[in-house]
Amino acid sequence: MRLVVFAGTTRTAEIDGLSAAGADPEAMVHTPSADAEILEYGAPVRAPVVPVSPTGCPTPAVVTRAVRELADFETTVVDAGLAEPTAAPTVTVGARPGEDVREEDPVPTAPGAFAAARQFGRRLPDDEVVVAETIPGGTTTALGVLTALGEERGVSSSLPDNPIERKREVVADALDASGLDPGDAAGDPRLALRKVGDPVLASAAGFVAGAARSGTRVTLAGGTQLVAVAALARHAGLDSALSLATTRFVADDPAVDLRSAGADFDLDVTVTDPGFDGTDHPATARYAAGEAKEGVGMGGALALADREGVPMARVREEVRSVYDELVEGEDGPG
Amino acid sequence: MRLVVFAGTTRTAEIDGLSAAGADPEAMVHTPSADAEILEYGAPVRAPVVPVSPTGCPTPAVVTRAVRELADFETTVVDAGLAEPTAAPTVTVGARPGEDVREEDPVPTAPGAFAAARQFGRRLPDDEVVVAETIPGGTTTALGVLTALGEERGVSSSLPDNPIERKREVVADALDASGLDPGDAAGDPRLALRKVGDPVLASAAGFVAGAARSGTRVTLAGGTQLVAVAALARHAGLDSALSLATTRFVADDPAVDLRSAGADFDLDVTVTDPGFDGTDHPATARYAAGEAKEGVGMGGALALADREGVPMARVREEVRSVYDELVEGEDGPG
Repeated sequence: MRLVVFAGTTRTAEIDGLSAAGADPEAMVHTPSADAEILEYGAPVRAPVVPVSPTGCPTPAVVTRAVRELADFETTVVDAGLAEPTAAPTVTVGARPGEDVREEDPVPTAPGAFAAARQFGRRLPDDEVVVAETIPGGTTTALGVLTALGEERGVSSSLPDNPIERKREVVADALDASGLDPGDAAGDPRLALRKVGDPVLASAAGFVAGAARSGTRVTLAGGTQLVAVAALARHAGLDSALSLATTRFVADDPAVDLRSAGADFDLDVTVTDPGFDGTDHPATARYAAGEAKEGVGMGGALALADREGVPMARVREEVRSVYDELVEGEDGPG
Repeated sequence: MRLVVFAGTTRTAEIDGLSAAGADPEAMVHTPSADAEILEYGAPVRAPVVPVSPTGCPTPAVVTRAVRELADFETTVVDAGLAEPTAAPTVTVGARPGEDVREEDPVPTAPGAFAAARQFGRRLPDDEVVVAETIPGGTTTALGVLTALGEERGVSSSLPDNPIERKREVVADALDASGLDPGDAAGDPRLALRKVGDPVLASAAGFVAGAARSGTRVTLAGGTQLVAVAALARHAGLDSALSLATTRFVADDPAVDLRSAGADFDLDVTVTDPGFDGTDHPATARYAAGEAKEGVGMGGALALADREGVPMARVREEVRSVYDELVEGEDGPG
């Protein structure tokens, strides 16, 4: 079992008010690089930030790392358009950072990354993979891709108060800039990815198409961004079985209809609850308030913990321990 | 515990008769990329070759991968000058493939890679690391570096019949081309690395200096190339404890005096014997004949297996199983 995390960036994240993935816009561009290091080493090594939101909510990489300490799986990070260096080992698929989707051609590397990641997925000898993402601003590009495919539906947010109207405006501007109407990219996932998507969606969708077609069992670990990956894979003609594992925080989001997404894209959906309600540790309390919700394979990691019989109380304990290690020597959040 | 493998290339390997690390010169340039994939995934994924020598001796990556399936350690591959793509995740330190050491300035990225790898080593949160290499032609550049530092001593070979005179000629030409006499680079490891070394030695030596100085326990896993790494770290002023773990095949090599190397560079030396003598499986028999000997952390992996109480018979069984998986679908060696 291998967790494959696609880490990248889009300048769409710099649009005011879209994302909580990082304390501030300057730090946010480092978040995927830091997430990769937290996943692989337990702490940032080269990245100059610890991704903690202004309210003190840590990156979900903390939860995934905690589960990795308790359950038995490999992790592999794919450089799906990182803008800042990382000391984590990464697989190369030729992806470059995405531009603001309101540009005319924001992700020119999308078709190449899709193809390279598809080949990587096809050749990887694992029997089972879990696919995850880390990209600030990624729910907006997910909405862009879904809209371009003609699959418009709600998307989640890393903010408790989802700026969905703002996202719709951005997506409308993005389609305009590319001369596309909603649905114009149906059956053409690479067009959607290049014009209104991001390099993480491009790499992850290619990987899923390649892995699933070669007989590897694929679980999409995440929220609406992974629903967009499923939609892209379906529009690429994939008809193999796919699973989706996410957290209760996404499932409880009124902006998201996981049941219909599961039905439309033929996904076997698993929802896990890490039991963060009623906790008062900074590592977990903000999740219960609806912040962050998902990312870096958190839902998939929790599902793996569950499958291996690791009690959620043990996971929470390890989450606190990873978090405490992480902020040790830092000024701390808030 | 983390095994950190430095994977790279030098065009010195293209000089006739120096190396057995690959079936033929065209395939040899892919060996480190394939080794990284075998270590991480158990099989080549993107590399178009299975590194097996003309006589059928498989790359020592097979042994290290086998132990990784049985013992508990993480692996990280550093891109220390790969010339061909790999699907394995790699850490970037700015190293580029090395040119033939008989050029005037064969490794211009050596000082930068040394510095970047040193910082990586310093910041890595692990308590203990094991350092390994994969680079065809690497014993010749090791001899070059040792000579430039004024530490000339015998070096081992991946060939049963060590072409040591040929290596000495190449090193003499290399020193000439750079206007250096033996010993001219004493106390200046970066000069030795840049002028007569390779990007793997540069990255590994920087990493060892950084990791050891920050209090991480360091074991050098390999033969004479790792002795060169120790010499470089000592000439960089490192006085922390260092261990060296290698195989009986290196220790038995009359060209190598491990005891004096251990004394000169203050190394705590461990030698392991995987018990390949008398075996007739292609995965192991050629090792008993003195081929390959070491590489990709084989000796260090065997020492870890020993420390964790994994019986060598179990290791041999797993080596055969990794090998059989590897050549499945291939024409097979010989």
